[in-house]
Amino acid sequence: MTAPTTAPIPILFLNGPNANLYGLDPSGTYGSESFPALQARCERHAESIGVALDFRQSNHEGVLVDWIQEGRGTKAGLVINAAGLTYSSVPILDALLAFPGPIIETHMSNIWKREPFRHHSYVSRAATGVIAGLGGLGYALAITAVATLVREGGK
Amino acid sequence: MTAPTTAPIPILFLNGPNANLYGLDPSGTYGSESFPALQARCERHAESIGVALDFRQSNHEGVLVDWIQEGRGTKAGLVINAAGLTYSSVPILDALLAFPGPIIETHMSNIWKREPFRHHSYVSRAATGVIAGLGGLGYALAITAVATLVREGGK
Amino acid sequence: MTAPTTAPIPILFLNGPNANLYGLDPSGTYGSESFPALQARCERHAESIGVALDFRQSNHEGVLVDWIQEGRGTKAGLVINAAGLTYSSVPILDALLAFPGPIIETHMSNIWKREPFRHHSYVSRAATGVIAGLGGLGYALAITAVATLVREGGK
Amino acid sequence: MTAPTTAPIPILFLNGPNANLYGLDPSGTYGSESFPALQARCERHAESIGVALDFRQSNHEGVLVDWIQEGRGTKAGLVINAAGLTYSSVPILDALLAFPGPIIETHMSNIWKREPFRHHSYVSRAATGVIAGLGGLGYALAITAVATLVREGGK
Amino acid sequence: MTAPTTAPIPILFLNGPNANLYGLDPSGTYGSESFPALQARCERHAESIGVALDFRQSNHEGVLVDWIQEGRGTKAGLVINAAGLTYSSVPILDALLAFPGPIIETHMSNIWKREPFRHHSYVSRAATGVIAGLGGLGYALAITAVATLVREGGK
Amino acid sequence: MTAPTTAPIPILFLNGPNANLYGLDPSGTYGSESFPALQARCERHAESIGVALDFRQSNHEGVLVDWIQEGRGTKAGLVINAAGLTYSSVPILDALLAFPGPIIETHMSNIWKREPFRHHSYVSRAATGVIAGLGGLGYALAITAVATLVREGGK
Amino acid sequence: MTAPTTAPIPILFLNGPNANLYGLDPSGTYGSESFPALQARCERHAESIGVALDFRQSNHEGVLVDWIQEGRGTKAGLVINAAGLTYSSVPILDALLAFPGPIIETHMSNIWKREPFRHHSYVSRAATGVIAGLGGLGYALAITAVATLVREGGK
Amino acid sequence: MTAPTTAPIPILFLNGPNANLYGLDPSGTYGSESFPALQARCERHAESIGVALDFRQSNHEGVLVDWIQEGRGTKAGLVINAAGLTYSSVPILDALLAFPGPIIETHMSNIWKREPFRHHSYVSRAATGVIAGLGGLGYALAITAVATLVREGGK
Amino acid sequence: MTAPTTAPIPILFLNGPNANLYGLDPSGTYGSESFPALQARCERHAESIGVALDFRQSNHEGVLVDWIQEGRGTKAGLVINAAGLTYSSVPILDALLAFPGPIIETHMSNIWKREPFRHHSYVSRAATGVIAGLGGLGYALAITAVATLVREGGK
Amino acid sequence: MTAPTTAPIPILFLNGPNANLYGLDPSGTYGSESFPALQARCERHAESIGVALDFRQSNHEGVLVDWIQEGRGTKAGLVINAAGLTYSSVPILDALLAFPGPIIETHMSNIWKREPFRHHSYVSRAATGVIAGLGGLGYALAITAVATLVREGGK
Amino acid sequence: MTAPTTAPIPILFLNGPNANLYGLDPSGTYGSESFPALQARCERHAESIGVALDFRQSNHEGVLVDWIQEGRGTKAGLVINAAGLTYSSVPILDALLAFPGPIIETHMSNIWKREPFRHHSYVSRAATGVIAGLGGLGYALAITAVATLVREGGK
Amino acid sequence: MTAPTTAPIPILFLNGPNANLYGLDPSGTYGSESFPALQARCERHAESIGVALDFRQSNHEGVLVDWIQEGRGTKAGLVINAAGLTYSSVPILDALLAFPGPIIETHMSNIWKREPFRHHSYVSRAATGVIAGLGGLGYALAITAVATLVREGGK
Repeated sequence: MTAPTTAPIPILFLNGPNANLYGLDPSGTYGSESFPALQARCERHAESIGVALDFRQSNHEGVLVDWIQEGRGTKAGLVINAAGLTYSSVPILDALLAFPGPIIETHMSNIWKREPFRHHSYVSRAATGVIAGLGGLGYALAITAVATLVREGGK
Repeated sequence: MTAPTTAPIPILFLNGPNANLYGLDPSGTYGSESFPALQARCERHAESIGVALDFRQSNHEGVLVDWIQEGRGTKAGLVINAAGLTYSSVPILDALLAFPGPIIETHMSNIWKREPFRHHSYVSRAATGVIAGLGGLGYALAITAVATLVREGGK
Repeated sequence: MTAPTTAPIPILFLNGPNANLYGLDPSGTYGSESFPALQARCERHAESIGVALDFRQSNHEGVLVDWIQEGRGTKAGLVINAAGLTYSSVPILDALLAFPGPIIETHMSNIWKREPFRHHSYVSRAATGVIAGLGGLGYALAITAVATLVREGGK
Repeated sequence: MTAPTTAPIPILFLNGPNANLYGLDPSGTYGSESFPALQARCERHAESIGVALDFRQSNHEGVLVDWIQEGRGTKAGLVINAAGLTYSSVPILDALLAFPGPIIETHMSNIWKREPFRHHSYVSRAATGVIAGLGGLGYALAITAVATLVREGGK
Repeated sequence: MTAPTTAPIPILFLNGPNANLYGLDPSGTYGSESFPALQARCERHAESIGVALDFRQSNHEGVLVDWIQEGRGTKAGLVINAAGLTYSSVPILDALLAFPGPIIETHMSNIWKREPFRHHSYVSRAATGVIAGLGGLGYALAITAVATLVREGGK
Repeated sequence: MTAPTTAPIPILFLNGPNANLYGLDPSGTYGSESFPALQARCERHAESIGVALDFRQSNHEGVLVDWIQEGRGTKAGLVINAAGLTYSSVPILDALLAFPGPIIETHMSNIWKREPFRHHSYVSRAATGVIAGLGGLGYALAITAVATLVREGGK
Repeated sequence: MTAPTTAPIPILFLNGPNANLYGLDPSGTYGSESFPALQARCERHAESIGVALDFRQSNHEGVLVDWIQEGRGTKAGLVINAAGLTYSSVPILDALLAFPGPIIETHMSNIWKREPFRHHSYVSRAATGVIAGLGGLGYALAITAVATLVREGGK
Repeated sequence: MTAPTTAPIPILFLNGPNANLYGLDPSGTYGSESFPALQARCERHAESIGVALDFRQSNHEGVLVDWIQEGRGTKAGLVINAAGLTYSSVPILDALLAFPGPIIETHMSNIWKREPFRHHSYVSRAATGVIAGLGGLGYALAITAVATLVREGGK
Repeated sequence: MTAPTTAPIPILFLNGPNANLYGLDPSGTYGSESFPALQARCERHAESIGVALDFRQSNHEGVLVDWIQEGRGTKAGLVINAAGLTYSSVPILDALLAFPGPIIETHMSNIWKREPFRHHSYVSRAATGVIAGLGGLGYALAITAVATLVREGGK
Repeated sequence: MTAPTTAPIPILFLNGPNANLYGLDPSGTYGSESFPALQARCERHAESIGVALDFRQSNHEGVLVDWIQEGRGTKAGLVINAAGLTYSSVPILDALLAFPGPIIETHMSNIWKREPFRHHSYVSRAATGVIAGLGGLGYALAITAVATLVREGGK
Repeated sequence: MTAPTTAPIPILFLNGPNANLYGLDPSGTYGSESFPALQARCERHAESIGVALDFRQSNHEGVLVDWIQEGRGTKAGLVINAAGLTYSSVPILDALLAFPGPIIETHMSNIWKREPFRHHSYVSRAATGVIAGLGGLGYALAITAVATLVREGGK
Repeated sequence: MTAPTTAPIPILFLNGPNANLYGLDPSGTYGSESFPALQARCERHAESIGVALDFRQSNHEGVLVDWIQEGRGTKAGLVINAAGLTYSSVPILDALLAFPGPIIETHMSNIWKREPFRHHSYVSRAATGVIAGLGGLGYALAITAVATLVREGGK
């Protein structure tokens, strides 16, 4: 977990539908930090550990699939919070299954404490590991984890 | 249910995939009125009760999520017939949960008389109320209902 | 939705078990309006749109079945909130299936937001349409809907 | 199956909710014979085989339970078509379990060809035998069967 | 139920696996009457009501299917106790669905009082009616029923 | 559990369908004590601990709902053995949910040792506590319990 | 329920995992009375009705099984709140099934109002009766019940 | 299956998410032939049997729905491999239900040999026939099949 | 799909129970072509593409298993429509699993549009590919497919 | 487990569908020993412990039922590996239930480690004991076990 | 199954909760032989076939896990009757999965004839083979089986 | 994630059954690092970020419950890998629910990629967050996470 000394590792960080509302939802389920602030914090953390972070968000399943496909030749690892698509999207699962590097699934909230339909994830079938329930801290840990896995050559 | 005397209430009315085929389907499940005719009738009814209706249709889940998000600051209420996305779209549910005004779920047909996979709705979890099975009449009642809820300050 | 100019339409409005407690339940699930006040408001609304409303309540399944059977020759349409019998009463379903006019199922609360055992309705199998979650406003819309369906000759 | 030569056997024949509509339902599920005609035919058949038939109908579960209890000391056998209460009424089951004579469950239609919720019967747990799907013919066979069982002393 | 005055009605009565052990099973589930005695009694009853009964038994599903197919052009009606094949044999169901005359499903015991796997019957999907739990009496009633249906031209 | 020194506590004790057959059922499931004897014993016990017991039985769900509603302003606590209605009656549940005092659900037999359909109780959702399987002793303990809860002001 | 005049009845009262935290849990699910206070109150009540109470608690399933086995020759009755082991422990069930005296299952809270996984109890399969939801009062009633059953020679 | 002699039949061939990765996935689930090669082979085969093939791929559900709708007036038949959307997309099902010509559902792999969530297809509810598990050969057979159906006027 | 130039490929084509009734069933589920006509057409098609077709039908599961076993050393490929045995026969599955060549499962009708019990196939677990819903056309395509797979050496 | 000194015990050993392929299946699920070799080894073992073994195999359910019935008067015990019929054959179960001697169910492989549909056995409901997963060794142990049970007079 | 001529094979035989009560349970489910007698008989049998048997019993899941772990380096094979822990203990399963030698699961009774919760075993997932329903005879066979497997080098 | 400057944070790290075998299991599910090496690495990491780590392992559920209870007053946070007890232990859940500090659930492997019975965790209901599938790296991240949460005062 020390800073790298060589070329930054290219990591893709994908956020699914409604993640752009983080911090704006009055129920507070997703914390009080806005999405741009979260993005900035992730980018700073990535830079500090030698990661070139490509942080994106879309409400469109097809766009997320396109991005995962594009990352096949250009990114060394991937972090994904598929949000509401986590529970039903086989297209995202199939795209992830064809991604060669390590994949970390992440969620702001502990999805197993929420409604039962959020207890099943298609993303988990393709993910190396899962980090959930830790808010913005979890996002940073996910970046650290995927970078470590890339450096160690694991998947 | 009397006509308003002040500025029109801005209401967003969203129609999901294939709603644009209403009246064209030879099975007659969705009546004989074409989608443009239905839209025109809804707009006339809305105008008659002081509602500024923004009536849209898309076959894309992501576009519907985008529109719901856009409506957060600009619309006082929302009517949604998510059509085929009703039964599986958590992204639409999550977007609706972050919408502050009243929401009416509507369906042309009585979905509980149809195939079992149409008996479960994610939209219901976020909706104030539900109006189904009444065809175009139900659309008008939904507009009346959401306008009334906005005027009464309820959700 | 304009007022009628001819003889009033005879409509039967049935309320099931415990509906007579509306407004008295301290949990507030069913609003603050008392049942007699709700009845009076429905009767005024019915009169204003040319409907002769026969508004009844019983805690007895058999009585509700008797009333639906009696309505077969004398009522043009029917609104029913079967309350706690909605979820298990096949006798009420069978009686409704033999009623020739349009039927609107209505509920004060959005039953799909409540306990899972309230998510399934036998009444829906016989109803033309469903209006739920809109409290007293839903009752008025239901009367309007059934009257419109009778005038249009639909079911 | 020959006619008796001694005192008539007292048999109770109970019909559940909406059975009084037989022959009136335009869907034709329950045949074209009216309930009074069915009753008259059953009574004639009973008389011809030495049975004193007490043929009743009620839409009220509690009344049916009362009648079964009353039959405990006065009737030698029981035929019951619990209609819509077949599928959910434990009170009727419990009353039947305490009836000492043979019990025949009967249904006008073949309930296993209809909706799935009609495929399970609580009455079957207490019945000696079941006769279903044979319309009025089945009613006559049921009376014959229960009379034969009483004569043979079986249950 | 009076005796016929014309040519005997040809009826096929099929018994499935292990029916030939009736009366031999020490548990007494299937009564004390032996299978040959049961057959003789059924044949006498059939003759008395103008039925030419073709009474057969096989432990082989394929043989039963063959027999049902053969009966298509030669038999006016069919009674079947498929025994242990009742619960799983789609081939027997498909053969019965192609039989043009009335079909009575019968069982010696009340199958709904026994193990749960005996509560579902594929035969019921093709049967006009069902008679169960009445032992040898039920067999006679089934012959009477199918003969009556043939005479009345029903299915 | 000492005797009271002040005005008797008004308690309603409701018994559901077929409870009036206790002691008469030859299977012995519900003991050998007759219902009138049970009632007399409960009344004596109630009197001895300062409770004015209103002990009733009905085979009619609607009557039980009526009685629970009547008890809202006149009784301080409620004991209910809903018998066969325990497992399916939402109307009784809804009435109980609107009862302000403590509620004890009771059963003569241990329902979890019986058929699976008796393992689920709607009454439990509204009850403060449950006492089952102790026969007449359980009835006395239930009266003691509800009286104690009323005195302690709990629910 | 009067005090005994002879030798005390030896009763074993077992408490399962985490019962020793009663009164310490800030959520208040298990009341405000500490476990030692609860134990002292139970022992006083037992003494007052002629019971020699052996009140124990363990977080170990194996220890509870050992204790139940030890009680086979030395205790006349048993009260058990198996706490979190209630829902899955077949070893405790098997040990209880081999205990010859009456057994009362008890729970501080009404487990059927809590999470669904707490709605099924293995202990109920071996228990004479069940008392739940009555907090410390229920504990006293359970001791009274088991003592009464022992005196009456029942199980 | 002989080559046509008249104007080519316009057929739409739709491929869902990730189909563009065929031949690139190192797991080999989808063969070694690249998607452009597959497309070229299908177009050659189509031409050889008198079919004007419009072969498309998208990762976006909405785009696929749009394309099916566009095909309603311009295409005589349709082949669809909805890939990961097969298992959950009601919008695609609804669009297919409104397509007037024959529809062949196809899959590269035998989906019933894979994970259970791939065993259910919404597309099958609208398809005339299904061809699966035959890789590129199946694609050619599907084009042959739909062309034959169009020529024979079937659906 | 061109004609072969060498020795014919020996293919076994098995038809299960009731397939011999094709074209005779008045419901028309299985088309209007008789089984002998279908067989003749399949044999002509086979001959035209260099296949020596051994086309058989049986109503007996055991005979089908025998035939599959016999084909192990003598046939290069296998087509099977197990008909009503598709849904429950593990013996046929086990025999197919021991067959070394390619296997095509075929069905006249689209089984996924029919009753739910026809949506699950044991045959699919052993089949290379599946062709369903295309009537006689599907049979020809299946022969073409299996021949192609044999020539290409695939399974 | 010592050798007998008296007349050999007649034991029937039945093998179901495809057992004759043991040792020939390239997957190796059923070992490398051929069926004739297995039979010979079983016969030798039987002879060594005083058992007259009647070792048979059939792919036909009906034949197996016939054989079990024939064994009722002639065999003292029975070993059965029903193979693929284990999981669905009620006819075999019913025949076994009528067999008076001890029955050992056996399987070459540990069926609970294989596909879920092999985890349920109808044969177990009639078997005295079960021996599985031990290949040919299990066959020998099963013969030993049934012989011992016969000698001890148990079932 | 002949006696060994070399050093004894070290085998661990583990018995789970309540096995020490065998023969003491008045229901007779587990026979009349006491646990010490059973142990002595097993040890004698083991000695006679060259097995050094380490026969243990515990009511504690953790102790059983400890013992399995200890056996990893010291025992050549393992027999386990996990008793009531069979149905739910993943820790025992995980420990067994790490044991390198053959494992025989055994049960005194035929668990598939008992309550449904005893029909699923976690132990089976790790066991080489299963022997059940044969009482003390099964214990001896299990020892013979595991010894044979060790000698043959199988698992 | 910088090193602390004040008193070490006391953290309890609990490992459940068989965790002590990590690195010894030949299947490699849990990596190649031995448990003592893993413990040493965790302790070094903890020390480097200002955490006083109390790292323990037990195969006994009761011991784990005892340790969680002891940690209530002495530890600021808790990391737990309940291993095989994760899936069924309500006692551990109940103990965790009474722990006031943040809790991180962790697993060496991605449990959602393994057998279905490992997809449900009781621990998740009490955990702040979950980290799984990352082997020893996940353990370090979990320590970092819980320390961060303690410092930020969150749960």
